[in-house]
Amino acid sequence: MNIILLSGGSGKRLWPLSNDIRSKQFIQIFRGEDGKYESMVQRVYGQIRSVDSEANITVATSKSQVSSLQKQLGEEVGICVEPCRRDTYPAIMLATSYLHDVQGVSEDESVVVCPVDPYVNKDYFEAVKRLGELAEEGEARLLLMGIEPTYPSEKYGYIIPESNDELSRVREFKEKPDAETADGYIRQGALWNGGVFAYKLKYVLDKAHEMIDFTDYDDLYGKYEALTKISFDYAVVEKESDIKALRFSGQWKDLGTWNTLTEAMEENCIGDATLNDKCENVHVVNELDVPVLCMGLKDVVVSASPEGILVSDKEQSSYIKPFVDKLEGQVMFADKSWGSFRVLDIEEDSMTIKVTLHPGHSMNYHSHRHRDEVWTVISGSGRTVVDGMEQHVKAGDVITMQAGCRHTIIAETELKVIEVQLGKEINVHDKQKYELEK
Amino acid sequence: MNIILLSGGSGKRLWPLSNDIRSKQFIQIFRGEDGKYESMVQRVYGQIRSVDSEANITVATSKSQVSSLQKQLGEEVGICVEPCRRDTYPAIMLATSYLHDVQGVSEDESVVVCPVDPYVNKDYFEAVKRLGELAEEGEARLLLMGIEPTYPSEKYGYIIPESNDELSRVREFKEKPDAETADGYIRQGALWNGGVFAYKLKYVLDKAHEMIDFTDYDDLYGKYEALTKISFDYAVVEKESDIKALRFSGQWKDLGTWNTLTEAMEENCIGDATLNDKCENVHVVNELDVPVLCMGLKDVVVSASPEGILVSDKEQSSYIKPFVDKLEGQVMFADKSWGSFRVLDIEEDSMTIKVTLHPGHSMNYHSHRHRDEVWTVISGSGRTVVDGMEQHVKAGDVITMQAGCRHTIIAETELKVIEVQLGKEINVHDKQKYELEK
Repeated sequence: MNIILLSGGSGKRLWPLSNDIRSKQFIQIFRGEDGKYESMVQRVYGQIRSVDSEANITVATSKSQVSSLQKQLGEEVGICVEPCRRDTYPAIMLATSYLHDVQGVSEDESVVVCPVDPYVNKDYFEAVKRLGELAEEGEARLLLMGIEPTYPSEKYGYIIPESNDELSRVREFKEKPDAETADGYIRQGALWNGGVFAYKLKYVLDKAHEMIDFTDYDDLYGKYEALTKISFDYAVVEKESDIKALRFSGQWKDLGTWNTLTEAMEENCIGDATLNDKCENVHVVNELDVPVLCMGLKDVVVSASPEGILVSDKEQSSYIKPFVDKLEGQVMFADKSWGSFRVLDIEEDSMTIKVTLHPGHSMNYHSHRHRDEVWTVISGSGRTVVDGMEQHVKAGDVITMQAGCRHTIIAETELKVIEVQLGKEINVHDKQKYELEK
Repeated sequence: MNIILLSGGSGKRLWPLSNDIRSKQFIQIFRGEDGKYESMVQRVYGQIRSVDSEANITVATSKSQVSSLQKQLGEEVGICVEPCRRDTYPAIMLATSYLHDVQGVSEDESVVVCPVDPYVNKDYFEAVKRLGELAEEGEARLLLMGIEPTYPSEKYGYIIPESNDELSRVREFKEKPDAETADGYIRQGALWNGGVFAYKLKYVLDKAHEMIDFTDYDDLYGKYEALTKISFDYAVVEKESDIKALRFSGQWKDLGTWNTLTEAMEENCIGDATLNDKCENVHVVNELDVPVLCMGLKDVVVSASPEGILVSDKEQSSYIKPFVDKLEGQVMFADKSWGSFRVLDIEEDSMTIKVTLHPGHSMNYHSHRHRDEVWTVISGSGRTVVDGMEQHVKAGDVITMQAGCRHTIIAETELKVIEVQLGKEINVHDKQKYELEK
């Protein structure tokens, strides 16, 4: 099976655990089979592998997610990087072209496109696999997964099938309706549109060529910015006449809000948290080093991270986005493929951060125009290079760097450094990168 | 008026804003007349001064509060320091002896003892003053303030007066009753015992001499540890026959829990906090640098500090103490007379803190056996002394100190330093102090 996982979006609806650089699919909140916490993307990846160990999985995403994907799925994961965000149709075009031109997938093979973040069980990916097989057999030009609705949701688009058979031709599509209208659709046998599409590779490739003149993947990549933002649903699905939907009645949840996310949590607390016995239906996810104490709350989610603290009624948690949009501020932490950083303190003319490097990893060799830096190694060992001079470092060593000086640090063991930045204009864009001569 | 303010207690009921070293009376949460936030102790001190500008105010407290008191009330505030905690009777004995022997107050002058943390208006201190005058006139050997109850509280002791006159002889005292019993008392005209006592200085001094053999304040101070823990109510008040209560019907609130404290807050939010319009009766006190977002909460208090995060139903917030007792941990921040510190990061073999020194202040000259330290000055200027070597320092300077090395830093302007501590056994007790040769 060739599967394209669409991994998009900034995860403001799950603030403060998601932010501009950590999307919701990377939050490690589910118990995996080994008892460790895993993210949505890790869970989905594992489920696909268990259904089809030979599956050719490609994640279509933006550059900002590459390091998180490699960290969580391993360096060898197939990633098709969009040069900029252009909604799902361009993303699917680019990934389809990537499969064809980079991976050598034949035009007659089927491709299934699937969001990276449904909360499902293996039966879902068995249905996904079957969709791919139906596409390859030519059952229709386009095949969709229709989710059996469990309530008249206003959040999803609806598929009206011609029959209630497991596989049925699609009569029409309906936009997100109000609850009453949704109820009417459901009584007619309507299904939720789960955003899963299967087609023969040639189908999308041909359409792409109709839309824009390009020779191959590299050429399309170069022209990507010129593409119009448009969803695959609008541009393709709703215009296709030869289209069928496969009815799926297993578990399917969209964990896009705290309300739905906490329903999938096995424990009430992740991180340092105490609930008294008067708490009912309370969930806490605490990524800070200090304790959270909850007393007498009902239907509340509490989430704390270096970005901020959310305390919300579960129902109301669906409406946080406009409020989060207004919360300006520094990105306070990030997990990267090379390690992580966390902002510890911000003052007018200084910032203190903790940098953790995984063994064998390093920062870019870089300099800053407008700030000096001081590193104090607090654990581990490695090497620093400062203006070409290499030095072995270990816990307790201090390295000072003036503005303009080129520097990097390479971890031998896991290495932790307290970095104090000093200057009048501290910002993330003040960084020039260089090649490090080996 | 001679007034002894009893400033006691660790403030666990107002965790995480109060901790073992910051008691609730120092939390700056009330709008003062100048619009700035002030603490309970600042508010009470100002109210006493405005009622009696000549008042002789002495705060009876433990050593741990001296720096906070001096910081909030000024260096010249009268403080009688208990060498150890021994409940209210020994504390009042010691403070009374301090007034007599150190301040030279005559035996015939009256003394009024008052808790430092009632939330009241000026009329309360006018009543306090009058109590002192009544004691001095010999109206009774002991005079109390009886607060007109506003509801049948189970939290207070009750005074049963002989009459409903403004000033009445006391018939008897009742322990904290259940609500039904309290209701019965109130129908008889009972009053809450507000913990305010007035007497002629000689009265308590004579009783003290009956209890323990001592010559003067210094001698009593030396013998203080031998005194039994006992409250003034049990030891003196309930045994006195010549005792009257002055009825007080003005505002009197005990802000000992989040529930009552938030009632006294003028705004719903102190610090960086956003409430959506579905929040009802929600209060947030946020001392962290990151935002708090509250959605759809009702009757909830949220408080965040470097110590932790409390999210509590208002009513339930009265019961946090046993939970807070179980939350072990490092003291994460402290305000001191010389400045403040805040723990930024804790790792197995290192700790990173930010130290702020007020202009003209310095640390003790000290050394550590088991840890090295690195200072990076992030703002301001001053001098360091390291093993006797003095050096001028400013933002960007780095000072490294091996274990055993004696060191201090003296602020010229306000000075901020990131201190990285490195070692296997980092703890606050690893500190040897020395005299700094000038």
